[in-house]
Amino acid sequence: MKAAVIPEVNAAWVIQEVPTPRPGSGEVLIRVRASGLCGNDVAASRGLIPFPSVSPAIPGHEPVGEVVETGPGVTSRAVGDRVGTTWIRGTCGRCDYCRLGRPVSGTAALLCAAPVSTGFTVQGGQAEYMVVAADQTVRIPDALSDELAAPVLCAGYTGWSAIRAADPKPHERVAVAGIGALGHLAVQYAKACGFETIAITTSPDKHDLARTLGADLVVADGQQLREAGGADVIIATSPSYAAAALTLPGLRVGGRLVLAGIDGQDAFGIANTHPFFALDQKILGATHNGPEHLREALDIAASGKVTPLVETFAKEEIAEAVDKVGKGEVRFRAVIKY
Amino acid sequence: MKAAVIPEVNAAWVIQEVPTPRPGSGEVLIRVRASGLCGNDVAASRGLIPFPSVSPAIPGHEPVGEVVETGPGVTSRAVGDRVGTTWIRGTCGRCDYCRLGRPVSGTAALLCAAPVSTGFTVQGGQAEYMVVAADQTVRIPDALSDELAAPVLCAGYTGWSAIRAADPKPHERVAVAGIGALGHLAVQYAKACGFETIAITTSPDKHDLARTLGADLVVADGQQLREAGGADVIIATSPSYAAAALTLPGLRVGGRLVLAGIDGQDAFGIANTHPFFALDQKILGATHNGPEHLREALDIAASGKVTPLVETFAKEEIAEAVDKVGKGEVRFRAVIKY
Amino acid sequence: MKAAVIPEVNAAWVIQEVPTPRPGSGEVLIRVRASGLCGNDVAASRGLIPFPSVSPAIPGHEPVGEVVETGPGVTSRAVGDRVGTTWIRGTCGRCDYCRLGRPVSGTAALLCAAPVSTGFTVQGGQAEYMVVAADQTVRIPDALSDELAAPVLCAGYTGWSAIRAADPKPHERVAVAGIGALGHLAVQYAKACGFETIAITTSPDKHDLARTLGADLVVADGQQLREAGGADVIIATSPSYAAAALTLPGLRVGGRLVLAGIDGQDAFGIANTHPFFALDQKILGATHNGPEHLREALDIAASGKVTPLVETFAKEEIAEAVDKVGKGEVRFRAVIKY
Amino acid sequence: MKAAVIPEVNAAWVIQEVPTPRPGSGEVLIRVRASGLCGNDVAASRGLIPFPSVSPAIPGHEPVGEVVETGPGVTSRAVGDRVGTTWIRGTCGRCDYCRLGRPVSGTAALLCAAPVSTGFTVQGGQAEYMVVAADQTVRIPDALSDELAAPVLCAGYTGWSAIRAADPKPHERVAVAGIGALGHLAVQYAKACGFETIAITTSPDKHDLARTLGADLVVADGQQLREAGGADVIIATSPSYAAAALTLPGLRVGGRLVLAGIDGQDAFGIANTHPFFALDQKILGATHNGPEHLREALDIAASGKVTPLVETFAKEEIAEAVDKVGKGEVRFRAVIKY
Repeated sequence: MKAAVIPEVNAAWVIQEVPTPRPGSGEVLIRVRASGLCGNDVAASRGLIPFPSVSPAIPGHEPVGEVVETGPGVTSRAVGDRVGTTWIRGTCGRCDYCRLGRPVSGTAALLCAAPVSTGFTVQGGQAEYMVVAADQTVRIPDALSDELAAPVLCAGYTGWSAIRAADPKPHERVAVAGIGALGHLAVQYAKACGFETIAITTSPDKHDLARTLGADLVVADGQQLREAGGADVIIATSPSYAAAALTLPGLRVGGRLVLAGIDGQDAFGIANTHPFFALDQKILGATHNGPEHLREALDIAASGKVTPLVETFAKEEIAEAVDKVGKGEVRFRAVIKY
Repeated sequence: MKAAVIPEVNAAWVIQEVPTPRPGSGEVLIRVRASGLCGNDVAASRGLIPFPSVSPAIPGHEPVGEVVETGPGVTSRAVGDRVGTTWIRGTCGRCDYCRLGRPVSGTAALLCAAPVSTGFTVQGGQAEYMVVAADQTVRIPDALSDELAAPVLCAGYTGWSAIRAADPKPHERVAVAGIGALGHLAVQYAKACGFETIAITTSPDKHDLARTLGADLVVADGQQLREAGGADVIIATSPSYAAAALTLPGLRVGGRLVLAGIDGQDAFGIANTHPFFALDQKILGATHNGPEHLREALDIAASGKVTPLVETFAKEEIAEAVDKVGKGEVRFRAVIKY
Repeated sequence: MKAAVIPEVNAAWVIQEVPTPRPGSGEVLIRVRASGLCGNDVAASRGLIPFPSVSPAIPGHEPVGEVVETGPGVTSRAVGDRVGTTWIRGTCGRCDYCRLGRPVSGTAALLCAAPVSTGFTVQGGQAEYMVVAADQTVRIPDALSDELAAPVLCAGYTGWSAIRAADPKPHERVAVAGIGALGHLAVQYAKACGFETIAITTSPDKHDLARTLGADLVVADGQQLREAGGADVIIATSPSYAAAALTLPGLRVGGRLVLAGIDGQDAFGIANTHPFFALDQKILGATHNGPEHLREALDIAASGKVTPLVETFAKEEIAEAVDKVGKGEVRFRAVIKY
Repeated sequence: MKAAVIPEVNAAWVIQEVPTPRPGSGEVLIRVRASGLCGNDVAASRGLIPFPSVSPAIPGHEPVGEVVETGPGVTSRAVGDRVGTTWIRGTCGRCDYCRLGRPVSGTAALLCAAPVSTGFTVQGGQAEYMVVAADQTVRIPDALSDELAAPVLCAGYTGWSAIRAADPKPHERVAVAGIGALGHLAVQYAKACGFETIAITTSPDKHDLARTLGADLVVADGQQLREAGGADVIIATSPSYAAAALTLPGLRVGGRLVLAGIDGQDAFGIANTHPFFALDQKILGATHNGPEHLREALDIAASGKVTPLVETFAKEEIAEAVDKVGKGEVRFRAVIKY
């Protein structure tokens, strides 16, 4: 089969022929049709986060496709099912963390002794075929196309998990900081659920777009947010803790700021001049928080209330796609067709 | 009457004769018997936090005494009632914050346009008498002495509010960082509710004491806490955000760190090397969070499960008491008798 | 002043001249402009629930008007303020319940030793003037007229409290059973907050109206609700526990059924054939649950997202209004002008 | 191997020779050592609840044993692991319920199109050997013996789930109604977590025992509970909704009554004279609510804070054990040795 391979750190991705995998017990073979290109894949290929340990290094953790073969003992999936899988899709089952009985989620990335991580510890989804344990797949709603489903599996799932972690109450205001791959979906998810939604972006050219996505209001930072009445929930989607901290002045009493992005360089700070102790506020960490929330994220997208903005590329254009993602020129998710 | 007065910033407190106040409509006159000396009163007298705006500057926000006269229209309190009051005891009723309908709590200190703040905007409790609106008093359980009730009104209320804000679940582990005025009570409150309780202190001389107070385990920092299995809840009671941040490595997945102290100098930081996003953790701000929790704090103390460790002083010794509190030599709460 | 008086059980209400009250310490005098007529006032006048103990029996607990005089010591309200008050507006402050420190709410109706209950234990709002403690009034948003504010003070507050008690999560479905005085507001509140909203009514003539109010779907009972996919939250607004029980088959796994109405005759039953134990469901009791929620209910109405449907009457028409309410012929709230 | 078989409805259980099963892909073979005998197994054998559909009808859903062989592809379990499994241990993965992504729990018993139910749809644990998918087993803590672990897998898990569903807050009071197989464990779990614990039993002969198990107080019904101050949480463990309803008068404002037992005959009723709407109370259904809670239940038992009271029987005594369980003569769990 053809697959995207990262030859080495900082080398351009290439499409090459590799052996097609075979499904073992409990596994399914997926004919991948669309595969989202997450910024973290690009970061890994540049060595900014750990390079994939699987060899050859076939990345990709937003794959959507069709089951074309089932291994022995599979009953929960059938040939013809449209499915996807996620970044962290399995855990070891034996370590202390696994004994906790928690759902497979982003948390396991750090705590399980041997997590199965798509495109990192095992072959990823930037390929024509991949093998996944049946129980580690999620079914894609019929109404959602391959291209639009793919970005939900990581970017959408992250944004929705962050919103659910914040537990917004009826009539509360939700702000989303950063209008990128993750943020442009989080804005839509907040609006789809009926919340007064505010976009926080320092990019003037994104104001109109943010409104088109559903934002009732667009502001530049926490100070402007405060002047506009503040928000009960702020979802910080950019990979900058410094940017997230700048939104704090706009957080209402009892408010929750969710750090949904990962900052590789700086600490997140609560200034001692910010009267955090008296404002009954919370800072939350959140990532993929369980299969129930992935299902919700897919269903809302399938209803048409949330539509990922994607730029599609043929698999032969993978190097170009990686380049554009790296430069931040894709609005807002590159999806590769296989 | 005799009252403690702070002549000016950095001047020694003095006991002097001032007019005895008279209760107006809806108010009661309290014959104060015991008054806790909070570190923030000392900080205010040194200009580290705002100096009292009331003149003369009679501080004190942990007063306990007996109602000796009721003003017109008072039905909820009667002569002979033992009562206390709190730091923030009233709000203006007209500002945007007051329209929120939230309970009178520490939050109002920052958000109400004109909060009534005992010992800051109005006469405090370091005096033989004080006048308080009947609705702004709390009744003291019979089983709790004046001296032991006083520290509950601020230090105990703060610690208990922090525990309740963290919402510990059955079978969770609760750690308390800092074994001082606030922390020595928080340890007892956690233990009184049946939680496995851990004290975090860098003072070797407090280890035995912490165990006597109920700690099942004593560690020096977050790293040792982690090695001992971690905690689901950490209550950071010291006025140092840097110290609080050092406990983070010991916070379990899903854990909550409550910042219950106020840091006047430094920011609180979440290091970018701490995988906050994936650990499903929360940082919470908390202070006095409503009369229901004050009542609980008093009831638990009245049951004998929590006993403030106090050093009592005659009112004539007020300057000495202030000096000892300022030096951190009081274990753990100075209470002045009137 | 003119006031509506209930001469005795089952007698027609009459408008008569009574002395205008005078504000005492901490009180305000309100020139009432509009006063909602709650079915419970009619029920009380018929002896179905306890007859008012105040004499003369001036009922009414949805009054809106203007402050025209303030008594001694009032700082939180000023002449010219538009205000209203609620059914239970004060508590004794001394009983065991009051020691709990909970907000003044419908719960106090049962648990406080001496609650102040508008139109029951003290003069109600069906009068040109009334006196209320300043702290027991709520300010009415400018954008909300007297006539439309009145029904929010009991019917709207009840419906909104029930929704907030159910704590609906983003993307959940909310059903409202019974489209009457309370239900026609609850449907609007649910829709205003973005929830997919379902009306449950056995009255075919209310289907179109329910859709106009915002219902996405209208069904007749729990069985139809189940066939339509069920609801996560059901707000049962009618005064019939039997009707509420009929909705249970439509409650989803993890769902919450809120009993917001009062049934004077029958028990609420969970059939043993309903697998309640395994469905992780909850049955909740709810009534006015605190001033924060009343403020929210008023603000949402002021935003224009919720509009009570009222039929206004001159005060001279009070007997006619009572008669129509008693027959269930008012759609959906009678409001008397003063 | 030897296994207990129920020949037909109402026939005595017999030990007979049946083929030893073989582990397939992803499965383990367990040498069962101890197997709890749940009242529902006895009820099923009498036709009171559905008779096992597996043939031969080998019941039992509290098995504990040792992994003696692993099938192809098993990595999460190893030969020598001590494991158990639960009543509902797997779901179909394809139905609407499974798409919800919820954990495998008692809820699936009703909602999944094809749940794997130990001792009902597949061979149960009253046998020398059984085959279970590795992912459907739970590891048993070393400190917990086979005999004491067995009752935790259903009775203990049920009681702990009920307590966790009620979400008791620090300093709340927890009552357990019914001191039987389930209740004698629930009392211990509540006490182990530090709650003031009350036993409700109409059996005078169980008063002393309830105190030995940790109850601070023993009462006969809700009225006595009310007189003793009431409880914030009541866990109703008996299979009688009528008995559960009798506890309601003792539920405090804001309290939660959990129906943890199954009533095969009668409805659960909230009397219209009980002012449920105003008391802010909740009635909850609860059963096994997820693997995280099972792990907690096992860990608390392993710590020695909860000790099932068991009566052990040799496998040859199975008919006698069934007879005693049916008559309610076992205190409190029969465990069969294999």
